[in-house]
Amino acid sequence: MSNSHQPEVRTYLITKTLVPENQETPIHFINADIVSKRLFYRRNHFPYPSFASSFYFLPIEGLVHNPKVFSLQEIYSLPSKTIKVVLECSGDKRELFKPKVYGEQWGKGAISQGIWKGVPLRSLLEYTGLLDTAKEIVFEGHDYGERPDSNQLFSFSRSLPIEKALDPDTIIAYEYNNQPIPFKHGFPLRLIVPGWYAMASVKWIKKIIVIDKEFKGPFQAVDYVYYPNKENDSGKFPVTTINVNSTIKYPLNRNLLYSGVYEINGIAWTGKDHIAKVEISFDEGQTWDTCQITSSSEKYAWVRWNYKWKALKKGEYTILSKATDSKGNVQPLEPMWNRKGYGYNALDSIKVKIE
Amino acid sequence: MSNSHQPEVRTYLITKTLVPENQETPIHFINADIVSKRLFYRRNHFPYPSFASSFYFLPIEGLVHNPKVFSLQEIYSLPSKTIKVVLECSGDKRELFKPKVYGEQWGKGAISQGIWKGVPLRSLLEYTGLLDTAKEIVFEGHDYGERPDSNQLFSFSRSLPIEKALDPDTIIAYEYNNQPIPFKHGFPLRLIVPGWYAMASVKWIKKIIVIDKEFKGPFQAVDYVYYPNKENDSGKFPVTTINVNSTIKYPLNRNLLYSGVYEINGIAWTGKDHIAKVEISFDEGQTWDTCQITSSSEKYAWVRWNYKWKALKKGEYTILSKATDSKGNVQPLEPMWNRKGYGYNALDSIKVKIE
Repeated sequence: MSNSHQPEVRTYLITKTLVPENQETPIHFINADIVSKRLFYRRNHFPYPSFASSFYFLPIEGLVHNPKVFSLQEIYSLPSKTIKVVLECSGDKRELFKPKVYGEQWGKGAISQGIWKGVPLRSLLEYTGLLDTAKEIVFEGHDYGERPDSNQLFSFSRSLPIEKALDPDTIIAYEYNNQPIPFKHGFPLRLIVPGWYAMASVKWIKKIIVIDKEFKGPFQAVDYVYYPNKENDSGKFPVTTINVNSTIKYPLNRNLLYSGVYEINGIAWTGKDHIAKVEISFDEGQTWDTCQITSSSEKYAWVRWNYKWKALKKGEYTILSKATDSKGNVQPLEPMWNRKGYGYNALDSIKVKIE
Repeated sequence: MSNSHQPEVRTYLITKTLVPENQETPIHFINADIVSKRLFYRRNHFPYPSFASSFYFLPIEGLVHNPKVFSLQEIYSLPSKTIKVVLECSGDKRELFKPKVYGEQWGKGAISQGIWKGVPLRSLLEYTGLLDTAKEIVFEGHDYGERPDSNQLFSFSRSLPIEKALDPDTIIAYEYNNQPIPFKHGFPLRLIVPGWYAMASVKWIKKIIVIDKEFKGPFQAVDYVYYPNKENDSGKFPVTTINVNSTIKYPLNRNLLYSGVYEINGIAWTGKDHIAKVEISFDEGQTWDTCQITSSSEKYAWVRWNYKWKALKKGEYTILSKATDSKGNVQPLEPMWNRKGYGYNALDSIKVKIE
């Protein structure tokens, strides 16, 4: 046996919990703009659902003129839409909150991006119509189980307000990266709500129900709610749109480097339109330099950015990145602390030492 | 297609760097006492070496009476020794130091355990003899490259004092878990130095050289040295024996639990003889309860331990674990801070919230 070439070296998902499966993308080692199925982060509330996908149909019912059950073939045959979308768990970067919060300690990798293809939800609703009293649309997933705070069984269900449901970019997806959606990511049908944190993008859709009130399921009214106070629920409001954000991918935090020229690089994203600029600071945010954005800045997608750093002087450096979106939203110096740890989007910060 | 059973869910190595490959074991999700090759942590200083293992021979030279080149067949034919050994990187838990230090930010998983089989080094040295002037034995690995602090090429080389080299448990291993050593872990021959941090267990041994002085290679005299001072090298001393240590595997840090009875569990290990007891505290170390050790306490191996916790009162809890070895070494409340971040062994500490 001769070892004349390097054995394969790969990166992997980072396990947070195995039952249910919660694993994070090794975001610092992802160089592509399209995350493969193997490295797409996995976020589950329950065990994977069991259902016979050969008998799969999608009913739309409730406050509609004509309730209808769609077959997969009908859905596949309708005009489709294909969108590059960042999906980010609202708990992404939770471990960075100070004071620390409880729950899955996601690092910076509860985020992935890829190409979703499907049919706009509004195209399906054109078949059923909506009664005037329609207020929200509920998406029920096939996944269900007990929540630790109760003995009742719940399915993972979430609602959208009518306006967001009718957004032409809100799709019932059936392909990811030109393949059927991987089972773990919602096969055969997954709601994709571009611009919203990914709890909205319900996997394994079982049923769509139009209702005339605010949906109060526990994944809408208990979880995925910002609670700004530690001790009580005052001031709470729902988690929806993705906050403007950025992550430094290279260097890694606490890297020990030698003087030279380095290409600092990372990604930036927002749920509100698109990224307008990314800046970098080496002096705790007193001054900022503009980074080069090296990918096209599209709505719903992350941008790649880089910055050529001449690291000549020895010492310890704090490097901060700051993204601004086209609506003028800017990453804050401090995150909005909230008890369940959602929506972290403070300036990204790493420390390196030049020797 | 019917999904009547759960899709496979696995845990993976946790990437620290890809070039060279440094990946950590997902220790919280390892339930076995024997870590599979797939999940054994990988720690490299250089790219993987290239050499023709079909022409592999092991020379022992330097201050010996009879220099000798051993073939693999000769080594396989000698009386063997099989030992269950913890290998722990001396940088394990580095990310926990406060103030934080630079370098690979290993979490709690730069540690694995398995069964190594090989021939005692002393059996080989019986063939060559040692001159009276012999002081240290140097092990040169096939892996080499530039260090960031110099343009010179270095191989990964380390020495042992004669006494440790002659310890009957110091072996030239050729099997891991009843299989040839995986290439990434040192195939065909790896030095295994039970009880010492794993930098001593040189992989892909190329050559063994007996010398009459202290070896000063950079992996002996620059790295793998405790520097207790941030600004200068005073008080430095070499990294050798594994410190007594423990890790709480379950619950995970920052878990949100509901009142009930939980089995807290973990592992404990030491390089100095064997583990004598493991204790747990829920009151910041004011009082300690004894944990049950559920595996036999052997030299060089970790023990598994658990504790039945009746978590009835709501609130936030700090859980501390503390191991004591048979030599009376006890985990300290604070680690011995050192500039390069070796040998972290403070009490393990997690926080959980009971709701």
